Amino acid sequence: MTSNMAINSLGIPSQAEIGQRLKKELPEIVHELSSSTLGDEGFAHVNPAPIPTRESAAAVIEVMRRIMFPGYFDRVRLEELNLQYRLGQDVTTLFHMLAQQVSIAVRHDCLRYGQPCASCDEMGYFAALEVVRQLPRLRRLLAGDVRAAYAGDPASRSYDEIIFCYPGLYAITIYRLAHVLYHLEVPLLPRLMTEYAHSHTGIEIHPGAHIEESFFIDHGTGVVIGQTSHIGARVRIYQGVTLGALSLSPEEVDSLRSAKRHPTIEDDVIIYSGATILGGNTVVGARSVIGGNTWITQSVPPDTMVLLKAPEHIYTGKN
Amino acid sequence: MTSNMAINSLGIPSQAEIGQRLKKELPEIVHELSSSTLGDEGFAHVNPAPIPTRESAAAVIEVMRRIMFPGYFDRVRLEELNLQYRLGQDVTTLFHMLAQQVSIAVRHDCLRYGQPCASCDEMGYFAALEVVRQLPRLRRLLAGDVRAAYAGDPASRSYDEIIFCYPGLYAITIYRLAHVLYHLEVPLLPRLMTEYAHSHTGIEIHPGAHIEESFFIDHGTGVVIGQTSHIGARVRIYQGVTLGALSLSPEEVDSLRSAKRHPTIEDDVIIYSGATILGGNTVVGARSVIGGNTWITQSVPPDTMVLLKAPEHIYTGKN
Amino acid sequence: MTSNMAINSLGIPSQAEIGQRLKKELPEIVHELSSSTLGDEGFAHVNPAPIPTRESAAAVIEVMRRIMFPGYFDRVRLEELNLQYRLGQDVTTLFHMLAQQVSIAVRHDCLRYGQPCASCDEMGYFAALEVVRQLPRLRRLLAGDVRAAYAGDPASRSYDEIIFCYPGLYAITIYRLAHVLYHLEVPLLPRLMTEYAHSHTGIEIHPGAHIEESFFIDHGTGVVIGQTSHIGARVRIYQGVTLGALSLSPEEVDSLRSAKRHPTIEDDVIIYSGATILGGNTVVGARSVIGGNTWITQSVPPDTMVLLKAPEHIYTGKN
Repeated sequence: MTSNMAINSLGIPSQAEIGQRLKKELPEIVHELSSSTLGDEGFAHVNPAPIPTRESAAAVIEVMRRIMFPGYFDRVRLEELNLQYRLGQDVTTLFHMLAQQVSIAVRHDCLRYGQPCASCDEMGYFAALEVVRQLPRLRRLLAGDVRAAYAGDPASRSYDEIIFCYPGLYAITIYRLAHVLYHLEVPLLPRLMTEYAHSHTGIEIHPGAHIEESFFIDHGTGVVIGQTSHIGARVRIYQGVTLGALSLSPEEVDSLRSAKRHPTIEDDVIIYSGATILGGNTVVGARSVIGGNTWITQSVPPDTMVLLKAPEHIYTGKN
Repeated sequence: MTSNMAINSLGIPSQAEIGQRLKKELPEIVHELSSSTLGDEGFAHVNPAPIPTRESAAAVIEVMRRIMFPGYFDRVRLEELNLQYRLGQDVTTLFHMLAQQVSIAVRHDCLRYGQPCASCDEMGYFAALEVVRQLPRLRRLLAGDVRAAYAGDPASRSYDEIIFCYPGLYAITIYRLAHVLYHLEVPLLPRLMTEYAHSHTGIEIHPGAHIEESFFIDHGTGVVIGQTSHIGARVRIYQGVTLGALSLSPEEVDSLRSAKRHPTIEDDVIIYSGATILGGNTVVGARSVIGGNTWITQSVPPDTMVLLKAPEHIYTGKN
Repeated sequence: MTSNMAINSLGIPSQAEIGQRLKKELPEIVHELSSSTLGDEGFAHVNPAPIPTRESAAAVIEVMRRIMFPGYFDRVRLEELNLQYRLGQDVTTLFHMLAQQVSIAVRHDCLRYGQPCASCDEMGYFAALEVVRQLPRLRRLLAGDVRAAYAGDPASRSYDEIIFCYPGLYAITIYRLAHVLYHLEVPLLPRLMTEYAHSHTGIEIHPGAHIEESFFIDHGTGVVIGQTSHIGARVRIYQGVTLGALSLSPEEVDSLRSAKRHPTIEDDVIIYSGATILGGNTVVGARSVIGGNTWITQSVPPDTMVLLKAPEHIYTGKN
């Protein structure tokens, strides 16, 4: 608590007087704000090129989920009779949305960083077609992720519950789409999408991470999966797990922007809650189990179990 | 980073050409998507029965909060003069909303899993009446939860601040309603509600958990309380606490879907941030204090303090 | 799972019969609910004074972000031509919004807690002018926070990405505004704002915390920064870090409501994920590095590295 009693002290000026002060001071304040936007580090987006918005990323995500899990997130009922029509409509909607958003994101980067013109519109259409072509593959991948959740969680009652309610599946769905866009080198949009998922689930998966089939994140709050992580098939992870980079000195940051800084997790590994696994050379071998709250900075061989030592606690006789 | 320079390379096809390609490939893509929805594992909801939606769960939660804490979340002012009318209106609104949503959830499960018809509409009304009858009891429980927050947090300034701002109270309010629906065996809806709370607070309380009076969760992000947890009266827990299940082999999952897999926390226990307590046979005895970042897989007697050992760290002389 | 088969058992009463029961029981239920709102601990807001709402806090946050990072969160394009006009308009909008919300918050407290009338409207204008005056300073601070994020995170590609996508910057932006209001002793509103940020990011910064320039929170989910924390310049912290209070007996809570209960972090400290630092007398000296998952309850000298001991894990030969 502060001892600054400003607004409770006597002698608060009258409304009219404050109005006068504002009138007097406003031009200088606005001038100071606007002049601070000049220069390379203006931290302002004073630019005729529009930018992708959180709302447009959310709209792309919504139509993507409708295509991946038909009928679950539709506002009208889906029947066999109308299934083909609805899918056809949703896929073309996704195509046009993506074409527009990708071309906005590309044009924005071109104008902002003075790159040579890069046929923004064509790129938007090109990337959108590429995503549409991959939809059946993405759907197969996500079906595997749903099955992995059901197999891995005794509290799950049905596939429906997983598709409807599980934050892990929500985050993975968005990641799998963002990852395709990331590989097409679309700027801004992929990260905007995975951060949208992050804000709804507490699960942060960088769009650059590589994650194979049948991936299950249970509970998920606090999970961080770094940009250059590599995760094999049938991996299961729990809340609070970090796949991160080792400590960096400020000088190392710039030189490592394109290096592999995050771990490799091989097939069939389970990582329990709160475990932290760090470093680009760290490999957790296939079928290993990493216990909760562990701190791993070196490779773990296949078929190994890593647990916290039991007697790390003291029990004092009485509270 | 990928070396796939697709959209930045030369020779991007023209918009017209991409339009041609899409036109040619779309039917096959849509066909592949729609044919993948057939069969038991279609991961599609192609079904004439509607399903509960996140929006309807949110609407139930909003009217529930208005009834539990009158005046705080109303858009118009509440005065003694109109209090009875507003409560009467809100309670009947809740009744009708719940009757509808429960009957949708029950009918959905019946049709989807081929169960015999179970009088869905009647069940909706029955469950809604049961919830309405329990509203005064729920309000007393939640008043106890507010008092527990004020007593437990030196940063709290007033009951108002707790009711308005504390994510723990928000999650507990939704849990207490979802728990009533869970005991009435309503499918989908309870979990949809607690996951709604989870996405807003980072606190995941499974609707099946049993939690007695005067429960306080401080900060709360990352808290996970599993389905078969049992929490006594006046328990206080902090952010990042997990009450979870012990490690399961894939084979054990199915056989344990109805077993007690999560711990029992007796009256007046405090559990500090990041503690993990696992296993259906693990009992933390009354009045015990579990220190932060501990890992507990065995029972703790009453009146016990469990702390991390101090010299687990090394201090290297210089950074 | 419960064995209460209520809604699946035979003999569910008919809709008409349940309607009759509701009609009969409703008056008593409403009466019990409304009579429980009387008295000091009514946990109801039956009061002619309006209260600040989450929606109004969100609106203040939105215009604040537009002023701090012009062009990024606007719905129309910002160009040099219209920059001054837009800033002038946004600043006056912020002034009027804040004047209104602060006066609502102050009046609410006055009426509710029987304080002498405190010129609520004047206070609203006074506080709003004070915030407007500090906008240029806040913008300089936030520019430093953006630079710190770019310098500290090798995955960041541009300032744009940080301003658009990084939850840490979002939480810090809201905190920096809420902190000004906190020092002006505005009730409710500052906490409402930081909890809004908390629900979107998983990062909880109490508006009372003192945080100097160039602060970077990476990933951020689960971060808790307590009310009386003091954080120096160029500090970097990661997800799951707690700056908290030491364990309190219920009796101590009341006496400590205004004491320094949270740690001091000096300049240039780095705190890795999951570290917990507790206590009002705990000081982490300048340039020290606190390793992940550590538990710190005593001061750490400057230029020190604190790490978990390596051989705390056992590796059993086979899984």
